[in-house]
Amino acid sequence: MSERQLFIRACWREEVERTPVWLMRQAGRYMRAYRRIRGRHSFLEMCKNPRIAAEVTLQPVERLGVDAAILFSDILVLVEAMGMRLEFHEGLGPRLSEPVRTPEGVHRLRVPDVERDLHYVMEAIKLARKKLRGRVPLIGFSGAPFTLASYVIEGRSSRSFRFTKEMMFSQPEAFCALMEKLTTAVIDYVNAQVDAGVQALQIFDSWAGCLAPQDYEQYVLPHMRRLFSEIEARGEVPVIHFANQAGTFLEKVRLAGGDVIGVDWRIPLDEAWRRVGYEVGIQGNLDPLALFAPLHEIERRVRDVLDRAASRPGHIFNLGHGVHKDTPEEKVVALVKMVKRLGAR
Amino acid sequence: MSERQLFIRACWREEVERTPVWLMRQAGRYMRAYRRIRGRHSFLEMCKNPRIAAEVTLQPVERLGVDAAILFSDILVLVEAMGMRLEFHEGLGPRLSEPVRTPEGVHRLRVPDVERDLHYVMEAIKLARKKLRGRVPLIGFSGAPFTLASYVIEGRSSRSFRFTKEMMFSQPEAFCALMEKLTTAVIDYVNAQVDAGVQALQIFDSWAGCLAPQDYEQYVLPHMRRLFSEIEARGEVPVIHFANQAGTFLEKVRLAGGDVIGVDWRIPLDEAWRRVGYEVGIQGNLDPLALFAPLHEIERRVRDVLDRAASRPGHIFNLGHGVHKDTPEEKVVALVKMVKRLGAR
Repeated sequence: MSERQLFIRACWREEVERTPVWLMRQAGRYMRAYRRIRGRHSFLEMCKNPRIAAEVTLQPVERLGVDAAILFSDILVLVEAMGMRLEFHEGLGPRLSEPVRTPEGVHRLRVPDVERDLHYVMEAIKLARKKLRGRVPLIGFSGAPFTLASYVIEGRSSRSFRFTKEMMFSQPEAFCALMEKLTTAVIDYVNAQVDAGVQALQIFDSWAGCLAPQDYEQYVLPHMRRLFSEIEARGEVPVIHFANQAGTFLEKVRLAGGDVIGVDWRIPLDEAWRRVGYEVGIQGNLDPLALFAPLHEIERRVRDVLDRAASRPGHIFNLGHGVHKDTPEEKVVALVKMVKRLGAR
Repeated sequence: MSERQLFIRACWREEVERTPVWLMRQAGRYMRAYRRIRGRHSFLEMCKNPRIAAEVTLQPVERLGVDAAILFSDILVLVEAMGMRLEFHEGLGPRLSEPVRTPEGVHRLRVPDVERDLHYVMEAIKLARKKLRGRVPLIGFSGAPFTLASYVIEGRSSRSFRFTKEMMFSQPEAFCALMEKLTTAVIDYVNAQVDAGVQALQIFDSWAGCLAPQDYEQYVLPHMRRLFSEIEARGEVPVIHFANQAGTFLEKVRLAGGDVIGVDWRIPLDEAWRRVGYEVGIQGNLDPLALFAPLHEIERRVRDVLDRAASRPGHIFNLGHGVHKDTPEEKVVALVKMVKRLGAR
């Protein structure tokens, strides 16, 4: 029982026997078992088929022995449910048809009925919980409103966020209306995931780091506070807030909310934790590319992260970003073993 | 005379009558005069033709009235001079043939004879100086060794720096040898630019921000210290050190060297300056995408940057990154006017 709940107890900053570990994008292309399924199905088919999504969700639990499973899905299925057409093109990433850049476009987006429109996600959660048989907790997730907004506005991933920022700066009311609609959708979505059985949540703000701290505070933070206060009011499951590349304004990320703050590798873990304060947990933060190093070098880096966490309650070991698709699978297996060995109290 | 040298005096942190301003990528596609020339010549042709390069260098001085010109060129011409084949493909960015990923590859790269191999750069500098007739100083530049190394290893721009980090972590000797060779080439290159007549230098470490602070310190900092100590030993011209997205480890960037530290918009200017210390100047740091905002909003942001600089000697107004190609030209003109008006003491 205690081993099973290690991850959840760490999220609540209880004392644990060893540091729990899971990895962002732990179900992914670096893994042979995943590629076998991916060879027969498109990425979106895999997300939308509850049997496949549940199967893939469990792969890293079986192969790596991680302390939590995370639902196999994509943050953009929520945006698709709001009425945009979503496609994934090999090597190019996602494409959303008719990007939203006007007040009318924002108005046309619908707040989805998540139980109906994302029924396949809820089914996948139920199936995954059944297959997990309580071995480890299941994490649900959503993109944060700003990250979703940037996809909705750009129609794809971007380096400059040219259209997102143009809308933010020159049509602030329309941008705010979009953020409100997305925030409501995210709240409904994560609540439905909790109803379906997820035992923890992670909010991915993958693109928050493109913003000046002042703009994050003005245009993003109020929506994030609403999101977290509504999730926390319900209070059933711990919430991890991962804002990528936000190392220069972690204090504001902390203000937004979350029981655990996820950090990338661009800031040492001890500095990040000191800055967000010890009243929240911390998740991270090995550079995913460190998995291309020899084992002794990986071990040196794992020790460094653990040393910086200093056995303080509330540390969850993870990478600073998702596992890279070219990562040698054996290295990922070795990493999890290492953390379990070195992270024992 | 004093107006002419405003930029240089600010680099040396002398008291000035108003904050000087120039913009990264101030000669570029957002400008009609530039596009007229670009319509008839490829980007590399423009870099390699001293007459065209000098003409384009002067365009923003005439159109915007900025306080410094920066040589029109590209950081990758140095790598081409080391023996790699360089191409630019519309919308795709640079491509280098046969990326270097082995000790043999590093060995084959030659340290260029910059006076000979990059003769066209030196010619462009001399021509630009002549055409400027002392109106404003001319800035020369180079990519920093790590940024150049990442192009040499990846063969193109990258999001993950998969091959760069793999080489750094698993072939540290070969990576170090590459950094040494590039550092030597950069030193020769900027010295030759000073000989040819540039009156200030900027070192662009565009990709430093992909690294963990610990890795920057171990694999990059020693080379940067050599670079800056050799430039500073000569001591003729001020050097601006711009490390993009390095907001979480600005102290280490400062340790590397430079008379002025350039910062992106992901950190408030006052916080950045406090962290690097007031013994160096600071350059920045308006989000380039702010130029898509209405004028009153641009003005609010310009005031904010100037307020944070607090008229302390050593502030050079700039964007936090290059001007975006889609920026309305009129907004750029207005920005420079605004800074000149609001930055008066």
